[in-house]
Amino acid sequence: MERPFSVRIRVYYRDTDAGGIVFHANYLAFMEQARTEFLGALGFDVAALATRDAVMFIVHRAAVEFLRPARLNEQLDVTAEVARVGRARVVFRQRVLRGEECLVAGEIQLACVDPASFKPVPVPGAVRARLGMADD
Amino acid sequence: MERPFSVRIRVYYRDTDAGGIVFHANYLAFMEQARTEFLGALGFDVAALATRDAVMFIVHRAAVEFLRPARLNEQLDVTAEVARVGRARVVFRQRVLRGEECLVAGEIQLACVDPASFKPVPVPGAVRARLGMADD
Amino acid sequence: MERPFSVRIRVYYRDTDAGGIVFHANYLAFMEQARTEFLGALGFDVAALATRDAVMFIVHRAAVEFLRPARLNEQLDVTAEVARVGRARVVFRQRVLRGEECLVAGEIQLACVDPASFKPVPVPGAVRARLGMADD
Amino acid sequence: MERPFSVRIRVYYRDTDAGGIVFHANYLAFMEQARTEFLGALGFDVAALATRDAVMFIVHRAAVEFLRPARLNEQLDVTAEVARVGRARVVFRQRVLRGEECLVAGEIQLACVDPASFKPVPVPGAVRARLGMADD
Repeated sequence: MERPFSVRIRVYYRDTDAGGIVFHANYLAFMEQARTEFLGALGFDVAALATRDAVMFIVHRAAVEFLRPARLNEQLDVTAEVARVGRARVVFRQRVLRGEECLVAGEIQLACVDPASFKPVPVPGAVRARLGMADD
Repeated sequence: MERPFSVRIRVYYRDTDAGGIVFHANYLAFMEQARTEFLGALGFDVAALATRDAVMFIVHRAAVEFLRPARLNEQLDVTAEVARVGRARVVFRQRVLRGEECLVAGEIQLACVDPASFKPVPVPGAVRARLGMADD
Repeated sequence: MERPFSVRIRVYYRDTDAGGIVFHANYLAFMEQARTEFLGALGFDVAALATRDAVMFIVHRAAVEFLRPARLNEQLDVTAEVARVGRARVVFRQRVLRGEECLVAGEIQLACVDPASFKPVPVPGAVRARLGMADD
Repeated sequence: MERPFSVRIRVYYRDTDAGGIVFHANYLAFMEQARTEFLGALGFDVAALATRDAVMFIVHRAAVEFLRPARLNEQLDVTAEVARVGRARVVFRQRVLRGEECLVAGEIQLACVDPASFKPVPVPGAVRARLGMADD
């Protein structure tokens, strides 16, 4: 089986909290980082999409399980896989791994919106083609 | 019907992102803020629980819907209601409101753990009693 | 002596780091929060200034001393006083206090810029008048 | 002239604010990231220093100039150079660069403290030796 796209990150003080572990909300930021790099690897720049193509992906729904805590200075891999592509949304399946151990797993549903009105707009054809997935 | 506990917050620059709206992960931080104040209103100090009672609540699962974006300088109400109390976990139902409008809704499941080992421990009796809920 | 404008905040998990204390950069966010409330108390809404008046205050220089650490769940007062107003800049003197104890002290120089070009623009007359200070 | 140590980072949504640029306090987090990697490259793990050697570096003073804004998805280089080493403190000179352009420049003074008491302790000899600088 093909390994999913992933980015390697390190846990810095900014990511942690007084519990000595990564603050839970920051795993969602890690996942956003992985999605941005995933889109970048496919040739899409999230900043250009917003300013030039008037398309922004915003998180519409997140279901996340925090299984084990990550700690300061650990190296983590954050995966990003497309689970489904709809007309105006994309669902990612993502994990935060420490070696082979899964620390966090989530399904993140993005809505494709106009950056000015926040109204749903279709996923651009070029993006859809590269995501290479069927409509739902 | 009784209104749930809530805290009023304002959206500052630190909470927003280049999309011009609150960065999605920060709603989870707002919810944590509401839970902390909720526990405080019941007489529990999260710092003292951790250092004195060796009990920490960490987020184990979050299911969140982001319905409408909040913007810079808006005032929001963030609610915190206990949905269920288990032996070693507490489930909160939470919403982020702008007036009567619901912007974000989530169910946040907390695990009660030992702050040193992160192993599950029972919710302290005093906390359970004040949460005033049946076991699940 | 008149007490400076201040806001009361609480330290939440999101503000802390694995050192068990507030992450140093977050004091700058606290100070931004106090400046926003200070401007709000004078009748200025930072969001409306940006979108309606095409004026944004951005931090141009910060000199901050971190004297003592703040911890989880502590209540802090964050002050905001105008030290100087220039043609296109405003300098604030700010402190983070725990009771009478000063934890952090800083001088924050803001540049008044056009939100689109980030070029300096004059501080609007109405803002200047309310800040009630001489030019430098 | 030797180029200083630097790390390459990308600007993600989490780093930006509603002004469309990196939130100023986050440059301090970027600088912390560069210092952590700098220490790591010298063979020191900030987490092990804290837990095993009971030594933590905390920011005691920061003087930062924000010259030009960085935007979403830009790649930046964040430098870290030791300016001075004292008995219980280390001063870093740091810059955030976009190509050759300096966006942010700062001097960050760290205090070496005991992680439990936050009292000053001497910079460990091994660290001092690797920082390779004279006492001040």
